[in-house]
Amino acid sequence: MIGFNEIRKLARVTPSKIVLLVIDGVGGLPHPETGRTELETAHSPNLDRVAREGICGMLHPVSQGITPGSAPGHMSLFGYDPVKYQFGRGIVEALGLDIEVGPGDVVARGNYCTVDDSGLISDRRAGRLATELNHELCDLLNEGVKVEDIEIALFPGKEHRFVIRLRGEGLSQEVADTDPQHEGMEPLPAQALDSTGRRTALVANSFIEQACELLKDSLPANMLLLRGFSQRPDYPSLRDIYRLTPACIATYPMYRGVSRVVGMDILPVGETLQDEIEALRRNYDSYDYFFVHYKKTDARGEDGDFDAKVKAVEELDAALPALLDLKPDVFIVTGDHSTPAGLAMHSWHPVPVVLSALYCRTDEVAEFSEQACLRGGLGQFHAPELMPLAMANALKLNKFGA
Amino acid sequence: MIGFNEIRKLARVTPSKIVLLVIDGVGGLPHPETGRTELETAHSPNLDRVAREGICGMLHPVSQGITPGSAPGHMSLFGYDPVKYQFGRGIVEALGLDIEVGPGDVVARGNYCTVDDSGLISDRRAGRLATELNHELCDLLNEGVKVEDIEIALFPGKEHRFVIRLRGEGLSQEVADTDPQHEGMEPLPAQALDSTGRRTALVANSFIEQACELLKDSLPANMLLLRGFSQRPDYPSLRDIYRLTPACIATYPMYRGVSRVVGMDILPVGETLQDEIEALRRNYDSYDYFFVHYKKTDARGEDGDFDAKVKAVEELDAALPALLDLKPDVFIVTGDHSTPAGLAMHSWHPVPVVLSALYCRTDEVAEFSEQACLRGGLGQFHAPELMPLAMANALKLNKFGA
Repeated sequence: MIGFNEIRKLARVTPSKIVLLVIDGVGGLPHPETGRTELETAHSPNLDRVAREGICGMLHPVSQGITPGSAPGHMSLFGYDPVKYQFGRGIVEALGLDIEVGPGDVVARGNYCTVDDSGLISDRRAGRLATELNHELCDLLNEGVKVEDIEIALFPGKEHRFVIRLRGEGLSQEVADTDPQHEGMEPLPAQALDSTGRRTALVANSFIEQACELLKDSLPANMLLLRGFSQRPDYPSLRDIYRLTPACIATYPMYRGVSRVVGMDILPVGETLQDEIEALRRNYDSYDYFFVHYKKTDARGEDGDFDAKVKAVEELDAALPALLDLKPDVFIVTGDHSTPAGLAMHSWHPVPVVLSALYCRTDEVAEFSEQACLRGGLGQFHAPELMPLAMANALKLNKFGA
Repeated sequence: MIGFNEIRKLARVTPSKIVLLVIDGVGGLPHPETGRTELETAHSPNLDRVAREGICGMLHPVSQGITPGSAPGHMSLFGYDPVKYQFGRGIVEALGLDIEVGPGDVVARGNYCTVDDSGLISDRRAGRLATELNHELCDLLNEGVKVEDIEIALFPGKEHRFVIRLRGEGLSQEVADTDPQHEGMEPLPAQALDSTGRRTALVANSFIEQACELLKDSLPANMLLLRGFSQRPDYPSLRDIYRLTPACIATYPMYRGVSRVVGMDILPVGETLQDEIEALRRNYDSYDYFFVHYKKTDARGEDGDFDAKVKAVEELDAALPALLDLKPDVFIVTGDHSTPAGLAMHSWHPVPVVLSALYCRTDEVAEFSEQACLRGGLGQFHAPELMPLAMANALKLNKFGA
């Protein structure tokens, strides 16, 4: 595939609009009784109309057999090689909690845990303590811990989970996990992975020592573990590579976070799909690339609820006309990965895609589904190639070579 | 494609079983009279049933237009980039003779040849001398040649061919061929390709000098040529990369040799396909990955015997139910390359593949053949991606990225 350095030379600004609608986890598996997937079961006349008018295919987010997490699944759709452009564990957690992470900050994923009298971990998750208690403990530590010249902030997640953010000069992500990943062992001290990580390891150890003292009477959460020290990645932005003015419309923090890393503006939006389409309408004149994220399909797939995933597709389909009314020059519908209800998790199966534009070729596909898109004119391809294809169809890419 | 370093982090051990059945040289070309390939001509209801129940596609062992030898054809199926993970000529010959090659050993392919009175090569193959005479000459040299601190062993092959194995300290494969590849020239002295090859070149030249003296009255085999100095490659194993416990079931030494290099256990087996399936049955509980090799299709293809290749497919098909009775969690049938009877040699044509598993999507393909698999749901892909796909379908790969 052509690299960013080449793309940069070809990209040009035009008034045309690209809308990428990501139906999270859209791909599925056949229901054992009907032989039809969620998408093939759903009544979705509007998606089928897009498939009929556009050109279809199948996307591989990473490569055959690889099940992508949400971050690599989206990076791939945004045109980035998901193996080259990875995210640390801490940063993914921070993005999921909508935490502001600045260029020099270091974040890590934390667990409250239980240690016994001899200091050995007896429960890595502190009995999955109540989220409210988690909030109280984070307040306690935010109040009580002081490390010179470093601003330390804890952000509670659900149950035993939190994110810690270190802010100050000379920090680095080159620090090993303090979580030994097994019970019956002592928490590890934070150790620098190279010389750049020394100061951060000292800060982390000072924090842990003070936290341990402050938590000592808070059984079962009388200790904590940190892993996935990471910094906000400094990746080239969509503005820089493609000369786009891109916007993200997503209701979940995780997707807003990944979009922020590739330089999208994050549009204010309510909770529903209708709110998302309204945000698109309202901001339509101000941007030339929109990423619109629909979460419910993935959530119902992860629940293992086939019928609910079918309904989530139908709900999306019913809302589609309001989006189509905007007549984007390039309209793409696809997913970041498959989430078959039969597996109740993300999976490795390729994802159907349709691209509709004035200058796309068409094919015989008249239905947006896994089986139908297999016969589509785009064939099967690596998801990062979708972005140049969208750009081309928007007439935003000049000729390569003379 | 995702690299081994990433795969290592994702692989996990489960009790599920993967069986890879390689029908050597399975791909063919249409018969000029019927327009049907060997596979399309064969009556193979069991292969067709697997195709109907599974998902099909076409594999490219190397890339468009490249005809693979047996070693790259198999390395590719085992998940290794065949361009990166190559085998020296000497090692391939040694594997084909089932010669034990230790980590420090150097092997080379040898030819007995004829030189005239002025020392020029008049026949590079010594008139394709009788294999028995070859055996006698190897015995003579094994007995008569001595090089200090180095153990030298010759292993006769067919006609003029042999393998030489050098064993001792400080040896290296960095030695150029002594075979000038043309008649009317003198054999070249062994020359080091870099400083690590100096000792080996000295050993080789001492061997050649003594051999030349011992062979001087053995016309037409009064001299020898060496090429393809090589060591056993030190490649990461399937255990290391995929955390598999893999076993090889193959009747030919070449395939056992390649399997040994990627760390498979080599199971004892008789001569027939039935013996192979019996070996699979007997060892089924002890491994989680089985490579089962069927040679006859390739041999009949190389003979240029279309009808015999059709029969070889039918013979395999008839034996298949005994294998299917084991109900492997993931069952894959494919070839290492095509060997069309019409070409009577390996060819560059892509190879049909079918994968059958509980969580594979299916497609409309109901026949295991070149034409039918072209329309399969797996599409056309690079053979090394088959291994992650097999792992995913066995639920042996965790999610990539958060």
